[in-house]
Amino acid sequence: MTPRVETSPRDGQALLERLRVVLVRPSLPANIGAAARAMHTMGLARLVLVDPARFPDADAIALARGATAVLDTARVVPTLAAALAGTQSSIGFSARPRALAGRVQTVRAAAAAAIGDATSAEVALVFGTEMSGLSNNDLAQCTSVATIAANPDYSSLNLAAAVQIVAWEMRVAALGDRVWDAPRFAVATHDDIATLLDHAERTLIALRFLDPRRPRRLLPRLRRLFARAGLEREEVNILRGILSRIDELIERDLVSFELTGVILPRHA
Amino acid sequence: MTPRVETSPRDGQALLERLRVVLVRPSLPANIGAAARAMHTMGLARLVLVDPARFPDADAIALARGATAVLDTARVVPTLAAALAGTQSSIGFSARPRALAGRVQTVRAAAAAAIGDATSAEVALVFGTEMSGLSNNDLAQCTSVATIAANPDYSSLNLAAAVQIVAWEMRVAALGDRVWDAPRFAVATHDDIATLLDHAERTLIALRFLDPRRPRRLLPRLRRLFARAGLEREEVNILRGILSRIDELIERDLVSFELTGVILPRHA
Repeated sequence: MTPRVETSPRDGQALLERLRVVLVRPSLPANIGAAARAMHTMGLARLVLVDPARFPDADAIALARGATAVLDTARVVPTLAAALAGTQSSIGFSARPRALAGRVQTVRAAAAAAIGDATSAEVALVFGTEMSGLSNNDLAQCTSVATIAANPDYSSLNLAAAVQIVAWEMRVAALGDRVWDAPRFAVATHDDIATLLDHAERTLIALRFLDPRRPRRLLPRLRRLFARAGLEREEVNILRGILSRIDELIERDLVSFELTGVILPRHA
Repeated sequence: MTPRVETSPRDGQALLERLRVVLVRPSLPANIGAAARAMHTMGLARLVLVDPARFPDADAIALARGATAVLDTARVVPTLAAALAGTQSSIGFSARPRALAGRVQTVRAAAAAAIGDATSAEVALVFGTEMSGLSNNDLAQCTSVATIAANPDYSSLNLAAAVQIVAWEMRVAALGDRVWDAPRFAVATHDDIATLLDHAERTLIALRFLDPRRPRRLLPRLRRLFARAGLEREEVNILRGILSRIDELIERDLVSFELTGVILPRHA
């Protein structure tokens, strides 16, 4: 059962503290500091840095001003996958969502969803590198994509400015009036889905449906599909059960193959 | 009376261009540049500087990045009164409104009012100096006062960050929080999905994962998952390709079974 979202400052603040801001490969320490300050002004506290060019760094501390606590508790991880571990919901912010991102939310809708999710789950807000933003592969790992609707002639938001707008919208969503939606089953975590995808990859290779030398974006497509679906834990179990059943069959088949020498037909 | 705001992009943009951002006695040229950039990202163009410490300045140009046009057309005036000349409405933004400020609006309410006013009048958005904000005397010259609801324990918004949030709210008020839809792949029809589910049912029965005498809601669960995912046609083709590959394997396995008489293990 999903608890109703309280709108008293303390509860709203608790929801904001459940949000983690993930900066993917930030190149300038000053931007990390300014982002930390932007977060702290809006009551967000948890910063995760994926493979930063330099951290810790004096520039980051200088730009954070009084928000060094956010830097002190920041986690540094090697990959976006590591940054998303433990989350059930993750929003990738992209100025120009590429083809792979099917559905793009507004920031305001994303904020409402994130604060709703935060009542029962860990939520990540994911920002790309200064120059090029999030890659297709990064976006495919997020459960949704949102765009800050900027001036189409000049959408060059500074990284900390983007964090500032998003943190602001989160704060308004958390501390304003809102109604929560229908109860959900237990949602699969990032880790559940990563394990499912690993399993699927092994099985599809064994099935000779996936050629690891020419993967042709099959796994990113599946990852994106699963992310969009918002898989439930029981659904992950069903899918893994199917995979395990196929694995058994393949294993038996390999034995038969050795016995009979029949060539397995290659799927186109 | 506030006229209705048209929401077509051209009209909304015209309203944004009627807003002037007034920075009162900014001390750091870098903040002027960053504020210009923040304005330009949201389609605001008119900057007025009241008695700046240094302007023009290389730091301002550096921080403005591609938004130097805003700096090039910026007006420098000696007093706030001069900056407000010609306006009918002016909003002073203050983190901690003093006694003199009677009614304090939220930023969102202020943005709706400003965009409404801009249909028929000149509107100023007024920001104070970095260290101390707007003085009582400054606030008394504005027609209304608004506060960015920040973290009460740390409301130290950078000047450009405050401009960014306000410009963002103005843009959303003028144009809506709109995003273009990313190009989507062709969406699967109901019939595509029905065919996929029929295929999945046959294959799962053949796999002995699904027992037709005790189906245990497996197919309704899959149907629900696919419906929620909003499958694309290409994804249906990928999933049916996987099913077909399993079918081939099962067929080969059945032949081996007949040859060898091995009992296929039942999956739990």
